[in-house]
Amino acid sequence: MTSQAAIGIDLGGTNLKGAAVDADGGLLAQHAIPTDLPGGPEAVVAGMVDLADGLLNRLSVSRQALVGLGVGSPGPLSIREGRIIDAANLPGWKDVPLRELLRSKLGAPVVLENDGNAAAYGEFWAGAGRGGADLVMLTLGTGVGAGVIIDGAVLHGHFENAAELGHTVVAVDGLPCACGQRGCLEQYCSAAGMARRVCSAIDDGEPCALSEVAGSGRTIDAAQVAQAARSGDRLCSRLWDDACRHLAVACVNIQHTFNPACVVLGGGMAEAGSFLLDGVTAHFAKQRWHLHEDFPTIKLAELGYDAGVIGAAGLAWRAMR
Amino acid sequence: MTSQAAIGIDLGGTNLKGAAVDADGGLLAQHAIPTDLPGGPEAVVAGMVDLADGLLNRLSVSRQALVGLGVGSPGPLSIREGRIIDAANLPGWKDVPLRELLRSKLGAPVVLENDGNAAAYGEFWAGAGRGGADLVMLTLGTGVGAGVIIDGAVLHGHFENAAELGHTVVAVDGLPCACGQRGCLEQYCSAAGMARRVCSAIDDGEPCALSEVAGSGRTIDAAQVAQAARSGDRLCSRLWDDACRHLAVACVNIQHTFNPACVVLGGGMAEAGSFLLDGVTAHFAKQRWHLHEDFPTIKLAELGYDAGVIGAAGLAWRAMR
Repeated sequence: MTSQAAIGIDLGGTNLKGAAVDADGGLLAQHAIPTDLPGGPEAVVAGMVDLADGLLNRLSVSRQALVGLGVGSPGPLSIREGRIIDAANLPGWKDVPLRELLRSKLGAPVVLENDGNAAAYGEFWAGAGRGGADLVMLTLGTGVGAGVIIDGAVLHGHFENAAELGHTVVAVDGLPCACGQRGCLEQYCSAAGMARRVCSAIDDGEPCALSEVAGSGRTIDAAQVAQAARSGDRLCSRLWDDACRHLAVACVNIQHTFNPACVVLGGGMAEAGSFLLDGVTAHFAKQRWHLHEDFPTIKLAELGYDAGVIGAAGLAWRAMR
Repeated sequence: MTSQAAIGIDLGGTNLKGAAVDADGGLLAQHAIPTDLPGGPEAVVAGMVDLADGLLNRLSVSRQALVGLGVGSPGPLSIREGRIIDAANLPGWKDVPLRELLRSKLGAPVVLENDGNAAAYGEFWAGAGRGGADLVMLTLGTGVGAGVIIDGAVLHGHFENAAELGHTVVAVDGLPCACGQRGCLEQYCSAAGMARRVCSAIDDGEPCALSEVAGSGRTIDAAQVAQAARSGDRLCSRLWDDACRHLAVACVNIQHTFNPACVVLGGGMAEAGSFLLDGVTAHFAKQRWHLHEDFPTIKLAELGYDAGVIGAAGLAWRAMR
């Protein structure tokens, strides 16, 4: 019998993913529905309310049992004001006061958070970082998303775009990035960046076990690169190792910047498990400084793709305290 | 007539610098005495108490008017416990409970802080960042010291060595650093690193206006490099510009990491004033991303070498609130 629950929703361009979560981070129920993009913000808000009510129904409780709703959304957002300023994957959404829209329909408190931050908060609260006071998370997917938790709170920064660690520069004059900079971390160790580098080397004529896949026009993903590297393919081994090396640099920089107890690696690249973790920790041991022993523990994420909804619900619980 | 004052002390290997500071960051009096290194911690603590009493005397007030004492010290420290764990420029100081020693002699509250953090707090409270809520400071001296203020508080991190931004890596496999890493920021844009690079190029036979100074065994400093660069010396211009370029990368990384309203540059390199600031801002405008307009304002420090004592006093005022 559930007495109270918070609901976390991940607002994606394809699906709305929802979860009901108890005060300890336990997942009580989850469900996903398609995002009604053509209907615009009003239809999506109605969908979120339906999703929330459906989750409460599964728990056999009423809206009275809902302590709050947390939404993880792509940015840029105004987190303070609960507004979506713009969202690349939600065409036509400009300056949408999502928090207010949801609050008035639901009659419960609503928290809006950047999706990378929500995932970091999920791992902090109920995943790889639980029990600690701080954590830095890198989500190695299409780009490198990130979130930073300090003394239990999400770092936002003056302009509310803090913790965009994927666009910190690790190589002056390095690979060009879509953001306009050069040498951004995500060019070297995001799942998509990894696949891009393999394809580009194949295009340049380097022999590779994945040449046939690339030649057929099918997409190469990080899992295939990891598999080929494990099987001894030279190109994939070299580029996988290079991704681990750049991730180790990111961990060195996180160490000197935030000095946290732990760094959590998630996203597509982290599905390779210990093959990623062992590579990163070996490079980290070589590269890190020798002056202090204040090294963070580098860990794999534990919540997988649920980190975002659990974290969004956790932020709703936190707001209630 | 002064009613109350906090005292800030910078604990250096050569001098103890002290200042009495009012609640608004105004400098009421300052004085320095030699650090009695041979006497060990007990003698140095006695010197600090004398320095504090002398400053109060100048203000014609008693110890009753002292709201607290802040000490900026080289690390590593245990800031939570108020202990100096080790200090490179204070030989023989191991695990000294400085806060407790001072508190028992003075009968007033004492705050111990890392010297780079104290300087950042000084600029935040009473210098280039006053009136704001956050700030990141880089002190370009022997190394690159740094301090980060978030929502009015100093960032410490789990292991209390956060904000060591001089040892973040901006160039994978770059120049070796004494810390054991490669490509640390401070190799490219500290005052000492700058001078080192010029000397090394001269040793390699590059023509330079400073060759004679270097050849005579005298020290080259950042001011001389700036002067030669302004006068059109090719080597100094190139390396000065390269320092500005790497500082711009640091500002890009600070933008994406902390997303602060302002970045403050201080220390020996900043004595070149607009020659440094213009160089850094020009590179920053070229390198930064184009997705958002959440750029920090890059500013020169305003308190010079007083930032540390003013900041230490400010932290004592803050602790009283």
